Amino acid sequence: MRIVVLAGGIGGARFLRGLKDALGNRADPAGEETEITVVGNTGDDITLFGLRVCPDLDTVMYTLGGGVNEDQGWGRADETFSVREELAAYGMEPQWFGLGDRDVATHVVRSQMLAAGYPLSAITEALCDRWRPGVRLLPMSDDQVETHVLVDDGSGRRAIHFQEWWVRHRARIPAESIVSVGADGAKPAPGVLAALRQADLVLLPPSNPVVSVGSILGVPGIREAVSAKTVVGVSPIIGGAPVRGMADACLSAIGVETSARAVAEHYGPELLDGWLVDEADADTEVAGVAVRAMPLYMSDPERTEAIARAALDLAVELKG
Amino acid sequence: MRIVVLAGGIGGARFLRGLKDALGNRADPAGEETEITVVGNTGDDITLFGLRVCPDLDTVMYTLGGGVNEDQGWGRADETFSVREELAAYGMEPQWFGLGDRDVATHVVRSQMLAAGYPLSAITEALCDRWRPGVRLLPMSDDQVETHVLVDDGSGRRAIHFQEWWVRHRARIPAESIVSVGADGAKPAPGVLAALRQADLVLLPPSNPVVSVGSILGVPGIREAVSAKTVVGVSPIIGGAPVRGMADACLSAIGVETSARAVAEHYGPELLDGWLVDEADADTEVAGVAVRAMPLYMSDPERTEAIARAALDLAVELKG
Repeated sequence: MRIVVLAGGIGGARFLRGLKDALGNRADPAGEETEITVVGNTGDDITLFGLRVCPDLDTVMYTLGGGVNEDQGWGRADETFSVREELAAYGMEPQWFGLGDRDVATHVVRSQMLAAGYPLSAITEALCDRWRPGVRLLPMSDDQVETHVLVDDGSGRRAIHFQEWWVRHRARIPAESIVSVGADGAKPAPGVLAALRQADLVLLPPSNPVVSVGSILGVPGIREAVSAKTVVGVSPIIGGAPVRGMADACLSAIGVETSARAVAEHYGPELLDGWLVDEADADTEVAGVAVRAMPLYMSDPERTEAIARAALDLAVELKG
Repeated sequence: MRIVVLAGGIGGARFLRGLKDALGNRADPAGEETEITVVGNTGDDITLFGLRVCPDLDTVMYTLGGGVNEDQGWGRADETFSVREELAAYGMEPQWFGLGDRDVATHVVRSQMLAAGYPLSAITEALCDRWRPGVRLLPMSDDQVETHVLVDDGSGRRAIHFQEWWVRHRARIPAESIVSVGADGAKPAPGVLAALRQADLVLLPPSNPVVSVGSILGVPGIREAVSAKTVVGVSPIIGGAPVRGMADACLSAIGVETSARAVAEHYGPELLDGWLVDEADADTEVAGVAVRAMPLYMSDPERTEAIARAALDLAVELKG
């Protein structure tokens, strides 16, 4: 069985760990191999201090590779912050991005390979040679696509990088719109369309539907390739609020209600075949989409595995 | 009084600290201001992992700015090594260069400014805005000059970067020659020739005469400007052996004996006016050069200050 997962950061990474657990524990009499290809969001990527940072790819890689800071869900375990302290002592901006020393090394390797001419997909593969995440991790594109947010903070309207809005301002400045800069001219990274063509099913973790899954689907060619498959998504909204993060601020910016139903309708029945919602949203109905309700908080590995298994089972059922 | 010091790394930095102490403690009835301009060797500079590292400039800056690791004489105090550990875990080479995390931040700032088009002299000034070393620190050149060493390790003759020979091989592979790559076309950094023109005297600390002071003097125009001044040097050789480091291996490579006399003769009487040697070398005679003997081990701040004061007094005496 071949599965493609479109992943953002923390939610995507945790769902993927649950999916690996579900597949590892699954009775499979035919001994069939399952391959997971992850198409990772790179719209959050940012260049800081001359270093290229890919937060979502790294969160997936660190989480599945056993190197993540489990408490915060991103960054490295046993991290030190000497580089950050020193950059601040030099008066370097920005100081709102929490670059740890171990994490810096990943960005140094990536930046050096980029400068040497390697595409991000090859670099991600090289980094995964160390982390061995147990999935094939592909960036959505080797082309630079950056999510920018149009805000008005009182001093006038301006576009800021998504990370500045999300991390520095905690999404508290209302977003007038969210733009995927460079998306129009971007191509899916090598392997992305082939993986989707060969996929038996596609899963959408409870990642941010606007700036994570939305950015991936915004790369020309990916939405069509995904839509041709059996697709099951996990709602990132429970009882009208995001499970984590500030997805509601992103949904508001694009005029979508913060509800499990509205997000499913935003994806649309031409893309989505099945939709997992929390028990709190059990009455959700989406035209053309099979909805199932179950507890959706990924509060521990067992519950996370159960969610992933339910998504998988629904997809297999819908594929028929 | 205006003093120019040509400095390498540890020896130069410690001598400079002694010189600042000597000047600070000097009775100066006229209230005359003393300005120290340091012309730092950049021949040891190296690009590692995409980061530009300037070991000698940083050693001077950290030492005079109070941030150096006092025990080893270079690198930062209270250092951590997470970046280095991670780069090794990624299998990145070289692993023989001891990049600490705090030190990495300096190289990140420098590399980012270089990429933005700033010359090394402007970057060094910006870094010194934080460290306030109490001297004006200038790189010998804004142009890239790299010391390479021609070696034959049994597998054939090849040129390696000075740092590889010095740090990785501890100068144990015999050097057939030492080449200052790029020196011919290099220009002194802005301010270097002007500082030399305006200098009352020039001091040569007990830095490596071949790859530190020698590299500086190898930038076209600097040797002539230095020679026009009253110049006093401190011997880096005591009793036929280097005070520290492996200067003997460098001297052998250029066919100069490891002795206080031979180093002074290598600098030559057209450059050198006075020469401080250790008491062990009290019988040293150099034609055309005034030689004085005193204890030359910079074993503590008091002795180092005494050495710097003696060099200063000899220069003032010779200037007449």
